Amino acid sequence: MHLSKRLGAEALGTFWLVLGGCGSAVLAAGFPGLGIGFHGVALAFGLTVLTMAFAIGHISGCHLNPAVTLGLATAGRFPKSEILPYWVAQVVGGIIAAGVLYLIATGKAGAEIGNFAANGYGDHSPGLYSMNAALISEVVMTFIFLIVILGATDKRAPAGFAPIAIGLCLTLIHLISIPVTNTSVNPARSTSQALFVGGWALQQLWLFWLAPLVGAVIAGIVYPAIWGEKE
Amino acid sequence: MHLSKRLGAEALGTFWLVLGGCGSAVLAAGFPGLGIGFHGVALAFGLTVLTMAFAIGHISGCHLNPAVTLGLATAGRFPKSEILPYWVAQVVGGIIAAGVLYLIATGKAGAEIGNFAANGYGDHSPGLYSMNAALISEVVMTFIFLIVILGATDKRAPAGFAPIAIGLCLTLIHLISIPVTNTSVNPARSTSQALFVGGWALQQLWLFWLAPLVGAVIAGIVYPAIWGEKE
Amino acid sequence: MHLSKRLGAEALGTFWLVLGGCGSAVLAAGFPGLGIGFHGVALAFGLTVLTMAFAIGHISGCHLNPAVTLGLATAGRFPKSEILPYWVAQVVGGIIAAGVLYLIATGKAGAEIGNFAANGYGDHSPGLYSMNAALISEVVMTFIFLIVILGATDKRAPAGFAPIAIGLCLTLIHLISIPVTNTSVNPARSTSQALFVGGWALQQLWLFWLAPLVGAVIAGIVYPAIWGEKE
Amino acid sequence: MHLSKRLGAEALGTFWLVLGGCGSAVLAAGFPGLGIGFHGVALAFGLTVLTMAFAIGHISGCHLNPAVTLGLATAGRFPKSEILPYWVAQVVGGIIAAGVLYLIATGKAGAEIGNFAANGYGDHSPGLYSMNAALISEVVMTFIFLIVILGATDKRAPAGFAPIAIGLCLTLIHLISIPVTNTSVNPARSTSQALFVGGWALQQLWLFWLAPLVGAVIAGIVYPAIWGEKE
Repeated sequence: MHLSKRLGAEALGTFWLVLGGCGSAVLAAGFPGLGIGFHGVALAFGLTVLTMAFAIGHISGCHLNPAVTLGLATAGRFPKSEILPYWVAQVVGGIIAAGVLYLIATGKAGAEIGNFAANGYGDHSPGLYSMNAALISEVVMTFIFLIVILGATDKRAPAGFAPIAIGLCLTLIHLISIPVTNTSVNPARSTSQALFVGGWALQQLWLFWLAPLVGAVIAGIVYPAIWGEKE
Repeated sequence: MHLSKRLGAEALGTFWLVLGGCGSAVLAAGFPGLGIGFHGVALAFGLTVLTMAFAIGHISGCHLNPAVTLGLATAGRFPKSEILPYWVAQVVGGIIAAGVLYLIATGKAGAEIGNFAANGYGDHSPGLYSMNAALISEVVMTFIFLIVILGATDKRAPAGFAPIAIGLCLTLIHLISIPVTNTSVNPARSTSQALFVGGWALQQLWLFWLAPLVGAVIAGIVYPAIWGEKE
Repeated sequence: MHLSKRLGAEALGTFWLVLGGCGSAVLAAGFPGLGIGFHGVALAFGLTVLTMAFAIGHISGCHLNPAVTLGLATAGRFPKSEILPYWVAQVVGGIIAAGVLYLIATGKAGAEIGNFAANGYGDHSPGLYSMNAALISEVVMTFIFLIVILGATDKRAPAGFAPIAIGLCLTLIHLISIPVTNTSVNPARSTSQALFVGGWALQQLWLFWLAPLVGAVIAGIVYPAIWGEKE
Repeated sequence: MHLSKRLGAEALGTFWLVLGGCGSAVLAAGFPGLGIGFHGVALAFGLTVLTMAFAIGHISGCHLNPAVTLGLATAGRFPKSEILPYWVAQVVGGIIAAGVLYLIATGKAGAEIGNFAANGYGDHSPGLYSMNAALISEVVMTFIFLIVILGATDKRAPAGFAPIAIGLCLTLIHLISIPVTNTSVNPARSTSQALFVGGWALQQLWLFWLAPLVGAVIAGIVYPAIWGEKE
């Protein structure tokens, strides 16, 4: 399918990832008495990927994440020439979602977005974890995320199930690491929130590009080198 | 299969959607200490669709929702001549479910149905969100819901998994938007509750027909136009 | 496979249903601060069926429930001559599980089993719902449960997914109706708990045989009559 | 594939099981107000297995657990000569994960690992359950876990679904038994935590090798003897 149509799918999918994941965090996590907590937010993030992977996986591959695109390209599963357009589509889709979420979240008296669902470390980590802890967490989580993506879409894995494996892997990653960084593993998701929060969120944004991309590249090298299909 | 039998399946399925989704909200969400909260209600709504899609998908297509029927018809996936009968079956099934739920919910001393699981905005939004926020939320949520339905039932998507994708998409939509409108994306579900609550719920019911139908139509135009199979 | 081996599978499966479902309720639902609540218990009950249906579905059909066996026989999907042996195996498996759960639950200082995970109505309903509300709830829930079982195992439904649909339907049923009756829809499960609780639980046990069996028989008549495969 | 590559996959998978399962328990379970509780930890443990089974099942079989390896070997599904190397890889992977978790968990001011996610009984059981209750629980839970593994990977079971059945079985096991022993059913997972906690955790570690291995061996004998495929 033509690149422009695939980019549209990536933008729409990343729109859903940010609106669904960050939206559940901003709107529903802390609702008095009935809120969904970190558990519900973790499920929401994973289900954005699960649902979109079934809906547009056959169109664009459903990356929805610059780190996923880079990791797949590193592993030779995606053309390097399309990395940049995919990144742009993902970031744009995420920003539009943040705008829609802003409109909804501020549609009540006295509403302020506060920290939105921005990612942070140190004083801006939900559990006050240090920059080093954040770096380790984001690199390792994205590394495993890409291993699961590369493994579950391997021709030797059972066909059709990859969206379940990959979506629920993102849920799992959030179950572990929301307290550390609010969980990124996705630079487009982090960027979309930081632009609306500004200040500290923009200053800390570098980590949520660097760490996921590093983790993804390592996985993109390791998986095919050790467990590649051509053996 | 004969239309009357398919309508029976739609009525039964929508009965289950309303009894399961609204029933969990009315009976179990706020149970002291052990209640399931918004997270459990979101899961319940999604599982009504997941279970029925496996049970009657091969009979009626398992729409259970006037917006879904209209969106599929817009996309050319469902005969326009059957929209109205499907809508009637869905609304009737939902109302019967609300009646059964009323019987159960009032079967304890001092029980009142209060707001049942009606949808609302402004003063009747769970989180007091405005009419505009409610409109945006319902249009966008239904739009994505239909994109996932159209994508997951696309011939290029893995066969058999659509009930999982679509059911869990409805769970996800509830994880995000219960605080905004109590989440409709389904006029039959909203109507069934409004009839028992009366007053404000009937006055606000227009939004929960208009917004889902608009969102569904947009998706029914966009998906085939951009990502249609005939390309 | 020889009936005795299939009965062994049914007993083991129902053992797991009771140990897992009732066990999570007794041991983990109300744990201070970290307990799993009704939501976790609902998931546990459903997963006992999901896991066993994948594990022994090919051996015994994985009914684990006298109402399921009767409903399938009514629909012509199971030999009537084997109903009674299946029922005995299910009840025996459930009682053994209740015994193991008793051993674990009383293995701490000052432990009493209290109401165990027994089903009840009126003063013994978790939410104090009346006998009539309990009857309606159990009949309707079991009716839908059998509709989902009959539909999801229909040859026209996607192959292999039935354990997911059926297991998660049981989760959904619990998300709705634990407050009403503690949720039975399964006479073997109810019997296993009532034998250890005695008194009121035995006196109310009739309802948790009658209502599920009635609901199952109705579904076993309705589904093939309206939506049967032979049409 | 060469044994060394399969061992790498087992180490990586067990790394993920410990980092994900124990990590969610240590970092997120008790987070004030928004914590995931036992329910979230149960889901996390199950999803580590579900995700890795899709990712590396085709490489190493994805045991991630010495009890699973021994049970499969007992049932004749795995070469006895490779039990020991698999065990070493699993334990090493688990210990590395505990180290990474230690780095993250201590990356905040005033952090102490306390009991980490170690398994225990008596005074060190989360619910203060006795050694006997712990023994019964761990033997029975692992026995059923292996029955589900052997059944869901049986050639007569639907292909491709085993990772879902097995992963969610581990979730279910945790929903039941975290209050009793913090749930092991996996000696590698227990060892990884005990090494960092020392003292009582090392003294009680024998039970979390003995009981899972006994439960697994019983299942490895029972399943093929009664329900084996060769009949």
